[in-house]
Amino acid sequence: MIERLEPLYGAVEAGGTKFVCMIGTGPADMREQTRIATTSPAETLLETVSFLRAAESRFGKLAAVGIASFGPLDLRPDSPTYGFITSTPKAGWANVDIAGAVRNALGVKVGVDTDVNAAALGEWRWGAAQGLDTFIYLTIGTGIGGGGMVNGRLMHGLVHPEMGHVRIPHDLEADPFAGTCPFHGDCLEGLASGPAMKARWLQSAEQLPADHPGWQLEARYLALALVNFICTVSPERIVMGGGVMSSGQIFPLIRQHVSDLLRNYVRAPQLLHAIDDYIVPPWLGDRAGVLGALALAQQRDL
Amino acid sequence: MIERLEPLYGAVEAGGTKFVCMIGTGPADMREQTRIATTSPAETLLETVSFLRAAESRFGKLAAVGIASFGPLDLRPDSPTYGFITSTPKAGWANVDIAGAVRNALGVKVGVDTDVNAAALGEWRWGAAQGLDTFIYLTIGTGIGGGGMVNGRLMHGLVHPEMGHVRIPHDLEADPFAGTCPFHGDCLEGLASGPAMKARWLQSAEQLPADHPGWQLEARYLALALVNFICTVSPERIVMGGGVMSSGQIFPLIRQHVSDLLRNYVRAPQLLHAIDDYIVPPWLGDRAGVLGALALAQQRDL
Repeated sequence: MIERLEPLYGAVEAGGTKFVCMIGTGPADMREQTRIATTSPAETLLETVSFLRAAESRFGKLAAVGIASFGPLDLRPDSPTYGFITSTPKAGWANVDIAGAVRNALGVKVGVDTDVNAAALGEWRWGAAQGLDTFIYLTIGTGIGGGGMVNGRLMHGLVHPEMGHVRIPHDLEADPFAGTCPFHGDCLEGLASGPAMKARWLQSAEQLPADHPGWQLEARYLALALVNFICTVSPERIVMGGGVMSSGQIFPLIRQHVSDLLRNYVRAPQLLHAIDDYIVPPWLGDRAGVLGALALAQQRDL
Repeated sequence: MIERLEPLYGAVEAGGTKFVCMIGTGPADMREQTRIATTSPAETLLETVSFLRAAESRFGKLAAVGIASFGPLDLRPDSPTYGFITSTPKAGWANVDIAGAVRNALGVKVGVDTDVNAAALGEWRWGAAQGLDTFIYLTIGTGIGGGGMVNGRLMHGLVHPEMGHVRIPHDLEADPFAGTCPFHGDCLEGLASGPAMKARWLQSAEQLPADHPGWQLEARYLALALVNFICTVSPERIVMGGGVMSSGQIFPLIRQHVSDLLRNYVRAPQLLHAIDDYIVPPWLGDRAGVLGALALAQQRDL
């Protein structure tokens, strides 16, 4: 009997505080995993490559490696700095060729994308966005990031989406908080990220009681952004993850605000009659990032 | 010598007040054209079909017909009401199978899309969006409509974009005008369409002097929306047409507001150093609609 060999992939979730590295074939086979503190690029990337090399020596050659990275990233395939982290304020990490470092050390194909686009791809492959051509994935945590697919492919365009920085109506009388975004003040991220909630209420989202008015305000801001994404991209579904969403109690509030704001203008049954299935949590939970990186590797290997 | 025959297409720009019908092969060969008042569907569609039939009897069979229609439209290819105008408030036109009427009468392939997506396709084929994969086309006139391409295909998704109805910051102290949108009040269309300008200033955009403060306000609102589209879709260019834009004097104001709002956050050379070539008027002018319809016919014929 001949065993059918599924290709083995490497996955790197490159975050600002840690790198999560994994090898495997999918959610049911996350064969080996490690966490590496994000220090200097030289040190962190060396440890990353060592983990992947050690895995190769035990399990055989990796078919490809996917990297889901913090950004901003250069994702223009024809650019000389394709796969580089570009202008990050994170010390030492600006202009780092994160994709090239792995590619050159291992001699392997590397797929790279933003952490949110990777998570979106993971949800599309194994989670809440299966079977969709056009959807949005948002993460509401330390920052607010967004990505997703349009016409069956991940969103890139000129750079990549920066959905956290959209401007939304801000009633300064009801909420005099000026916002925390160092660039834009009261953009979406400045008003509704985890740090914004904490700065406004002096309690983190995790600590804020379920009946605190801060949740209604948070739901209202997120709904204003969602309505704009709906009117712009016309997604078939919106998947919302991240620390601020993790208790789940905010979902019904968001759905109600979105319905109130749209006023039945967009006449799709998903919005009019099935909004519980339209604005949803991710399925992959805190594995979204690393499984998204694995999905990038698979996609790169096609 | 054998003459190379380019396929001949029919084009229907279906608007709320008139249908513009044309047959030809492109901007350099708009062979025959007519205008039909939009009355009842039966009457208007009969005249449309008669024009196309008469053209066929003179020039030979049309390879396909494109219809660029007012909406909302059902554009889901697997829907039983694909190609229908759906829930329009325009009397008599709700649930009209505009694509089927032409297809059945002429026995021809029919491509159908929103008027803005068609205009976007026309600009992509022959105008300001040539060579781009991801761009946005906006029209600012009686209403505000938006469409465009992402990943090389027109934007559809759940329904189709409704970019005129995004919510933007509205400083009620600086501009106490409540907005004209019957659904949302002070959404983008409610604040910045032609009728909104006229209701606020009691003069139409055409009459408003170039140094009137209304132009700065208009530029600010449009720029707020553009910044949101940039952060959401990351377009490679934004093409802006329609009556309010036609004098052209507002373009420098919009570009300045967009730069001020982005604060160099999106680090693309097009935005940082070449914004004059990033936010641009259409090339096809008032032929955008009917040439867009022709481009839809070509695309349908591929």
